[in-house]
Amino acid sequence: MTGRRLLIFFVLATSAAAADDDGLLPQAREHFRAMPRDMATPEAPTPPERVRLGRALFFEPRISADGTTSCSRCHLPGLQGADGLPKSIGARDFHLKRNAPTVFNAAIHSVQHWDGRFPTVEAQAKGGVTGPAFGNSGFAPVKARLAAIPGYPPLFREAFPGQDDPITADNLGAAVGAFERTLVARSRFDAFLEGKADALSPAERKGLQTFVETGCVECHKGVGVGGEGYRKFGVKSDYWKETGSDPPDEGRFGVTREAADRYKFKVPGLRDVALTAPYFHDGSVSELPKAVRIMAKVQLGDELSDEEVDAIVAFLGSLTGAEPEEFQKVPALPPGGFTAGPPAKR
Amino acid sequence: MTGRRLLIFFVLATSAAAADDDGLLPQAREHFRAMPRDMATPEAPTPPERVRLGRALFFEPRISADGTTSCSRCHLPGLQGADGLPKSIGARDFHLKRNAPTVFNAAIHSVQHWDGRFPTVEAQAKGGVTGPAFGNSGFAPVKARLAAIPGYPPLFREAFPGQDDPITADNLGAAVGAFERTLVARSRFDAFLEGKADALSPAERKGLQTFVETGCVECHKGVGVGGEGYRKFGVKSDYWKETGSDPPDEGRFGVTREAADRYKFKVPGLRDVALTAPYFHDGSVSELPKAVRIMAKVQLGDELSDEEVDAIVAFLGSLTGAEPEEFQKVPALPPGGFTAGPPAKR
Repeated sequence: MTGRRLLIFFVLATSAAAADDDGLLPQAREHFRAMPRDMATPEAPTPPERVRLGRALFFEPRISADGTTSCSRCHLPGLQGADGLPKSIGARDFHLKRNAPTVFNAAIHSVQHWDGRFPTVEAQAKGGVTGPAFGNSGFAPVKARLAAIPGYPPLFREAFPGQDDPITADNLGAAVGAFERTLVARSRFDAFLEGKADALSPAERKGLQTFVETGCVECHKGVGVGGEGYRKFGVKSDYWKETGSDPPDEGRFGVTREAADRYKFKVPGLRDVALTAPYFHDGSVSELPKAVRIMAKVQLGDELSDEEVDAIVAFLGSLTGAEPEEFQKVPALPPGGFTAGPPAKR
Repeated sequence: MTGRRLLIFFVLATSAAAADDDGLLPQAREHFRAMPRDMATPEAPTPPERVRLGRALFFEPRISADGTTSCSRCHLPGLQGADGLPKSIGARDFHLKRNAPTVFNAAIHSVQHWDGRFPTVEAQAKGGVTGPAFGNSGFAPVKARLAAIPGYPPLFREAFPGQDDPITADNLGAAVGAFERTLVARSRFDAFLEGKADALSPAERKGLQTFVETGCVECHKGVGVGGEGYRKFGVKSDYWKETGSDPPDEGRFGVTREAADRYKFKVPGLRDVALTAPYFHDGSVSELPKAVRIMAKVQLGDELSDEEVDAIVAFLGSLTGAEPEEFQKVPALPPGGFTAGPPAKR
């Protein structure tokens, strides 16, 4: 080792050690886990043929009733896997009820959609494509359109070998889900959790400390920094008084019809939150500091100081992941013009 | 040179020479020119800062009135720069009147749009974004939305240095146009024109010969294999009787109101035609062989044989270009949620 290299080594080693003088890392590890490299499960594997098909289908507008809408309409490569809209808009100007979260890291969440109506990304993909956001009611027209594009039947056969008739709604969901399970966007926070204490700046470390101490971490925890379970939005006071949401959305109550679920929503995962405004289930708040302040007020009954808000926002910035290359680069789709088939219901 | 290498050399040299035994290359060069590497002009340069801004704007949905529509809505990376639809659909379910051609190589055309309403890609971009396809009527709301996204003002300043107020409709058009002027998709036909006689297969060479001899080349010529000047659609008989287009579109007459322009359209460039179905200004025909047959009938009064159609279709396949990397890969856009601003007119 030369003298200069030795010096750099000592400086780095010292700063890394100093960086965790406050014992923040073990504390963080009590609440959070690093993102895995893949979100496959034994029930939902990610074989390459299935991921390839799912990637094409994800960017495929010809599965919608009017040929305008793919999954990527609401999960854009340019906007960190979200769409920037308060509430998403699908085929034929269909206005969705809620804000689209990023598709990055979504597969690790315990359920999908704000009201948890889908258990997995596979079920969500199937439900989305066969529903009104794509202008569809059922899979039959989707199947007819896919079968009419010569490149798709072979892709389905390769992804689901041995099946007589592989172009099914379940297989579409399984393929899109398999692709989505590869969309891991790891951030500096993961490097931190894996032991690189200086992966976070001093401001971000301070923010992490604040995030833990104020109690944000009681819900926004685990590998997704949220994304597990439901909470009432508005524990201490009605959320719509702060967000201006009118009329209020009753959340999971719409799925279960149980009074205890009124105003409950899935705890959103906070990974990539800095790049995926606007915020909340209804996209009612555009600025992250304001969203943090409202959350502390209505969930914890706390009025945060400007300093605390700034610190938490700094920490949240460390959750921004690198965009997966296979997402940013749009695949060449099987060629063929769109054919609408029979007129779809509105 | 080893014996084996020598053998390969002789085989290649012999096949290349044999490949142009029929003198097809000099004949082709009378009609066509290879694509340049860039479509910049002295009036429309492509400095990197301007291309970078234009690339972001091209993929930017927040310039539309409802945040759903970017240039890439009708010019998709996955579909060879077109959208696969008979007629395109914009923001708020706005149905356009005509088929969207690919954006690849578009800047070399003599005019833009089927009716030639825009002289350049710059004018087209400006006109498109400020018009109903984006849900806009004018530039004021676009400017307000761009100015509200913190990343855009610096990009405009860098692209148009020295201007006090660079977020203008003309600059938006100039930037998007600059990006589009980089979207060159060179094909095997270009390699052929540059002297690599065996870049075309025997079937494609035969098709090129047929394309020239039947007279297709009288209109589909030059660097774009079309894209220069106007022709009446239906020289020998009414096009709508063959295409089923009802009611007929009067084409350039709608722009000039001169009787001589009735049913005239820009001669479409045929580069990438094999991957950009459906065909004609109204997307009325989905299959390329059928489109070739109709063109010969209504423009030349010829009934082509199946063999001639197959040959021409084979040649047209050689015009498929490699997708520009900077197009397939969507750039990360400046972050920020969509804010609609004042309600837009419908």
